[in-house]
Amino acid sequence: MKTYEGGPMRVASTLLFILFSVLLGHAEEGMWTFDNPPRAILKERYGFEATEAWLDHLRLSSVRFGGGSGSFVSANGLVITNHHVGRGQIQKLSTREKDYVAHGFYARTPAEELKCPDLELNVLMSFEDVTPRVLGAVKPGMTGMEALDARKKAIAEITKESREKTNLRSDVVSLYQGSQDWLYRYKKYTDVRLVMCPEAKIAFYGGDPDNFTFPRHDIDVTFFRVYEDGKPAATANYLKWNSAGAEDAELVFVSGHPGSTNRLQTLAQTLFQRDVVYPVRQKSTKRKIDLFKAYAATGAEEKRRAGNTLFGLENSYKVGKGEYQGLLDPRLIAAKQKEEEDLRGRIETNPEWNRTYRWAWDTVAAVVERQRATHLLSTYRTIKSTLYGFAQTLVEYSVEMKKPDNERLTGFQDAHIASTRLRLFSPAPIYLDMEEIQLADGLKESREYLGAQDPYSAAALGTDTPEDVARKLTASTTLVDPEVRRRLFEGGESAITASDDPMIVFARRLYPIAEEMRVWNERNISAPLTKASQVIGSARFTVYGKTMPPDATGTLRLSYGTVKGYPMNGTMAPPQTTFHGLFDRAHSFNYKDPYDLPDRYLERKASLAMETPLNFVSTCDIIGGNSGSPVVNRNGEFVGIVFDGNIESLTGRFVYTDEASRAVSVHSAAIIEALRKIYDAAALADELEGKRTQ
Amino acid sequence: MKTYEGGPMRVASTLLFILFSVLLGHAEEGMWTFDNPPRAILKERYGFEATEAWLDHLRLSSVRFGGGSGSFVSANGLVITNHHVGRGQIQKLSTREKDYVAHGFYARTPAEELKCPDLELNVLMSFEDVTPRVLGAVKPGMTGMEALDARKKAIAEITKESREKTNLRSDVVSLYQGSQDWLYRYKKYTDVRLVMCPEAKIAFYGGDPDNFTFPRHDIDVTFFRVYEDGKPAATANYLKWNSAGAEDAELVFVSGHPGSTNRLQTLAQTLFQRDVVYPVRQKSTKRKIDLFKAYAATGAEEKRRAGNTLFGLENSYKVGKGEYQGLLDPRLIAAKQKEEEDLRGRIETNPEWNRTYRWAWDTVAAVVERQRATHLLSTYRTIKSTLYGFAQTLVEYSVEMKKPDNERLTGFQDAHIASTRLRLFSPAPIYLDMEEIQLADGLKESREYLGAQDPYSAAALGTDTPEDVARKLTASTTLVDPEVRRRLFEGGESAITASDDPMIVFARRLYPIAEEMRVWNERNISAPLTKASQVIGSARFTVYGKTMPPDATGTLRLSYGTVKGYPMNGTMAPPQTTFHGLFDRAHSFNYKDPYDLPDRYLERKASLAMETPLNFVSTCDIIGGNSGSPVVNRNGEFVGIVFDGNIESLTGRFVYTDEASRAVSVHSAAIIEALRKIYDAAALADELEGKRTQ
Repeated sequence: MKTYEGGPMRVASTLLFILFSVLLGHAEEGMWTFDNPPRAILKERYGFEATEAWLDHLRLSSVRFGGGSGSFVSANGLVITNHHVGRGQIQKLSTREKDYVAHGFYARTPAEELKCPDLELNVLMSFEDVTPRVLGAVKPGMTGMEALDARKKAIAEITKESREKTNLRSDVVSLYQGSQDWLYRYKKYTDVRLVMCPEAKIAFYGGDPDNFTFPRHDIDVTFFRVYEDGKPAATANYLKWNSAGAEDAELVFVSGHPGSTNRLQTLAQTLFQRDVVYPVRQKSTKRKIDLFKAYAATGAEEKRRAGNTLFGLENSYKVGKGEYQGLLDPRLIAAKQKEEEDLRGRIETNPEWNRTYRWAWDTVAAVVERQRATHLLSTYRTIKSTLYGFAQTLVEYSVEMKKPDNERLTGFQDAHIASTRLRLFSPAPIYLDMEEIQLADGLKESREYLGAQDPYSAAALGTDTPEDVARKLTASTTLVDPEVRRRLFEGGESAITASDDPMIVFARRLYPIAEEMRVWNERNISAPLTKASQVIGSARFTVYGKTMPPDATGTLRLSYGTVKGYPMNGTMAPPQTTFHGLFDRAHSFNYKDPYDLPDRYLERKASLAMETPLNFVSTCDIIGGNSGSPVVNRNGEFVGIVFDGNIESLTGRFVYTDEASRAVSVHSAAIIEALRKIYDAAALADELEGKRTQ
Repeated sequence: MKTYEGGPMRVASTLLFILFSVLLGHAEEGMWTFDNPPRAILKERYGFEATEAWLDHLRLSSVRFGGGSGSFVSANGLVITNHHVGRGQIQKLSTREKDYVAHGFYARTPAEELKCPDLELNVLMSFEDVTPRVLGAVKPGMTGMEALDARKKAIAEITKESREKTNLRSDVVSLYQGSQDWLYRYKKYTDVRLVMCPEAKIAFYGGDPDNFTFPRHDIDVTFFRVYEDGKPAATANYLKWNSAGAEDAELVFVSGHPGSTNRLQTLAQTLFQRDVVYPVRQKSTKRKIDLFKAYAATGAEEKRRAGNTLFGLENSYKVGKGEYQGLLDPRLIAAKQKEEEDLRGRIETNPEWNRTYRWAWDTVAAVVERQRATHLLSTYRTIKSTLYGFAQTLVEYSVEMKKPDNERLTGFQDAHIASTRLRLFSPAPIYLDMEEIQLADGLKESREYLGAQDPYSAAALGTDTPEDVARKLTASTTLVDPEVRRRLFEGGESAITASDDPMIVFARRLYPIAEEMRVWNERNISAPLTKASQVIGSARFTVYGKTMPPDATGTLRLSYGTVKGYPMNGTMAPPQTTFHGLFDRAHSFNYKDPYDLPDRYLERKASLAMETPLNFVSTCDIIGGNSGSPVVNRNGEFVGIVFDGNIESLTGRFVYTDEASRAVSVHSAAIIEALRKIYDAAALADELEGKRTQ
């Protein structure tokens, strides 16, 4: 089922990695795949044996959320994640009358648990190296495009076969810039119910200012429960809860799903990010923040509706700001350059390596030039809106369904269509007023950057204003009703092409232009980049061995590190905070938003043990997507939950250092203290602490 | 007695200053002299009238410590300052058996108050512009050296006259780079007694790491009482205590004695600081820290003895580090350059200005070249040691006393000899073991930098090792006894030249070399620099008017600002902290040194009102020497005491900005809370709050 390379070669290459890491200051770097955990480092530095059983248990206790992470914490399907990971579902379950985002939620009995509208959770059941089959499909002499097509077909076949054989969700994951391909199989849970969430105010205490900083004081947790056949699922693999938490300097692990990193990118790609991608993205995100803030300011219900969207945008903006500042630091670019020069320098010492690998950097650089030239098109020939997204999916589906399975776009292949359906048929509320302003401003922004003459913009607007187009689209579309979407989907090509729903008509009009650009990008960007990146990935293996983990890919990874304070602003940040710190901050800001506290915290203050550890930091290497990851100790026990990285960690997208970069977690003790003293949730606390079985 | 320029011209020039400040971002800049307070700014921005009475009362309530500040806080001579300002005296009053630094001190009755060995406090009674007389002494055609001598003679005469007339300590202070000279008259208190100090641990909570940072949690206060004729002095001018403190955004003032700033220096001088002064000083300070740390590690008593010295060295090192980092920031240099270019640019537009002023920058630059060339000599042809300092003073005295009063070095003139005697005859303990290691390492360091051939180093060492010289000097010197020093002083030239005390012999041997260098420096550095700087100062007046305060000179200044948080490390620092924050930090660091707490704080924790404000920040413009300055509100009431600047404030030596630069103060409420709840010092708290008269 799973494979792992053992033996002396591994130890030697790991030693090389340690040396290399120490030289570059990457002491505790790495979001490691479970097939290649840093066993030797753990053994040598910490005397810790990462056994197969330990790893399997941790992996099978880890849960993937869309864009986030979580873990099983009871035998009865109880899952813990961050509030900000579950927030989308909490928002979808909330109404004007019952605002669980603002006031929190607790189901005292299973019967009170609330079914989430469109949440799919995944558990990684097995993984398998399929590199030979994928790379084997690519024959010598194929053009880049032919190679890309052959590769995609092979992947589609592998996933289809796997799903038919195992009935598990099956994805092929490209690691090490495409130089390895692995088949990952997931158990899927789609009946997921909300058990408990605190108030957003305390889950996200300090709001946008405190986001990505430390010292921190957030109870950023939410509990869900997975159900099978209408009953809480039996989850034999779950993390035992340890309310003592981890001590200063203790070895801890994070098991989660980091979304993406760009550490193995070439220098040319990094400079493209710095010069083009970040400035464009930050400007656009800021514009959307302003748009939704203006909308939220029009009323309490509008504020509630825009809450989750604004949270996400502000979060992205702050991450982007930190990452962009990192890119603007000449030292970061110098470090990237040094790394690249080292690799390329070694390649140049060997004539065969030189012949095989050298060209790839030039190809990447040439592709990057194309990306620089077309970045505004790629960015602004798109429209952000939930309803337009549905329409676009339906129109694409009407085209893709006619192709053989292995030639379809990924989401429409047999292996993934169920997940697409779950999203498409979601009963979650859609707010037409928000859709309208988002569409109007998006269309306006596209026209500003593309020009009115651009075919996409011209097709979208015709002779109308963006506001008119948005008003007409939202005024009479029926896609708000999930049943309408289901009927269109099930009616297939004929139903979709015949539909006169204005949003469908609009999507049909834009489809050829978007599709032309997608094909152009595939041919001119993806195909050559896939090939060249794979060659660079292979070159790295050849030169250094498999000594580094691959860039993050939204799949399960293991990080390790120690609980540890760090130098901050002229002094030291402590390894942890306490409830004393929460009340200090509240009072020091005179309870002004975002430093006010939910009433319950003021009413029950006297009952709280103030010295209970609240949040803590560790050197574990994480990034967005790790939110909600369990932090476990040597015994694999749950000691905390990652919810953030500090501001110093944000440049970790490009280069990791452990001097001041820290993962920020909620301490297990704080969760229990809050459940028992603030939320009267003794039943849940007992379930966590193994004091009762539900 | 005191003068102040009023009228419309002043308002116009202040408006210009506001404009200039806003343009350069100097919103709340300024350590203003009391003759030229920023009345118009206060009126316009805050609607506050700084009346003569308000200013006089604040000035007469302000107290100068050597290198620090304080204020009267009762009618019975009670003075509050920082613990770290009083620490030298507390250390001198402590013994192995009674360590008031470690354990604190509280005199329940006046009889228990402890007389300080060598503390002189000054209160600024009056000030007077004596520029015409000083500058008038310098005649056209004089050489630089002649001008300097004439200037010094005039100053000596003014101070002598003033002291004879008023019996007040009389100093002439050069402001605006010597382009204005003011006579400041001080009432002196030399019978000063220790009333109360907390444990160093809580006064300096967080130790060196937290020094110069915020959020902060220090009770950095010490109370002294001034006596006259053996009785507590009646101090009609004292600050009324306000335990409510200042609110967020409230206008506050700081009245204190900032030591020095370099804001009006030329660019050439700033670059000299960056390239030469700071690297040399930091290296030397670090060396001394290591020396005393090694000594302190040899035993508990050694640790106690070295305590205050190490505190001072680490403090200097951290300040120096922050200032040096500022100098290394190209933006700081660019700002200095821009300011200088603006001034010089304006001068060039006017032929007469050009003729009068332009040369001065070239002269300063030429002097700076000489300073660069001789900086190591100036630095290392000195020896740091208390006993050597006494010997040096005595030998200098034996020479200076033969000159007419107005030609003597400042400390030996009639106007100042009493202060010199106070220091020289101090009964404070001297530790020979510490003296020895300090002498040995100082001699070694000098030889390393000057070379063994240097006349000073050669004269100091002869053929001995530094360790031998130090051992011999400390083994048989009798200068430890203050009575011996008194007898030598009173014996005058004949006693001093006849003395065979090895330290005196040593000082006599080094004197001619040091004196030669002093004279060389006076001729080649001080004389041309004094003249050129004065011209630049005049140029600034001519171009901008008297719109900026002078650089700090250790004399009384008024700053203003608002209580205000600031952007820090990705989020906001609050305007204040509370006792909650203190306990949070202690617990978060697991009570590890320097984050442990005195026992009393743990024992009495339950009785403390945790939400009592502890420290707070304001935009008031301060620098070293302001430590212990009172923070007062519009009513002139005491609301806190400055004890630090944050790390962002350290570049304020060169350029002030109020974006993140903050003065850090102890809140009046925290002082009362600690006195009543922790120290059982209700009598003192009552005296402060006006609830009883002692």
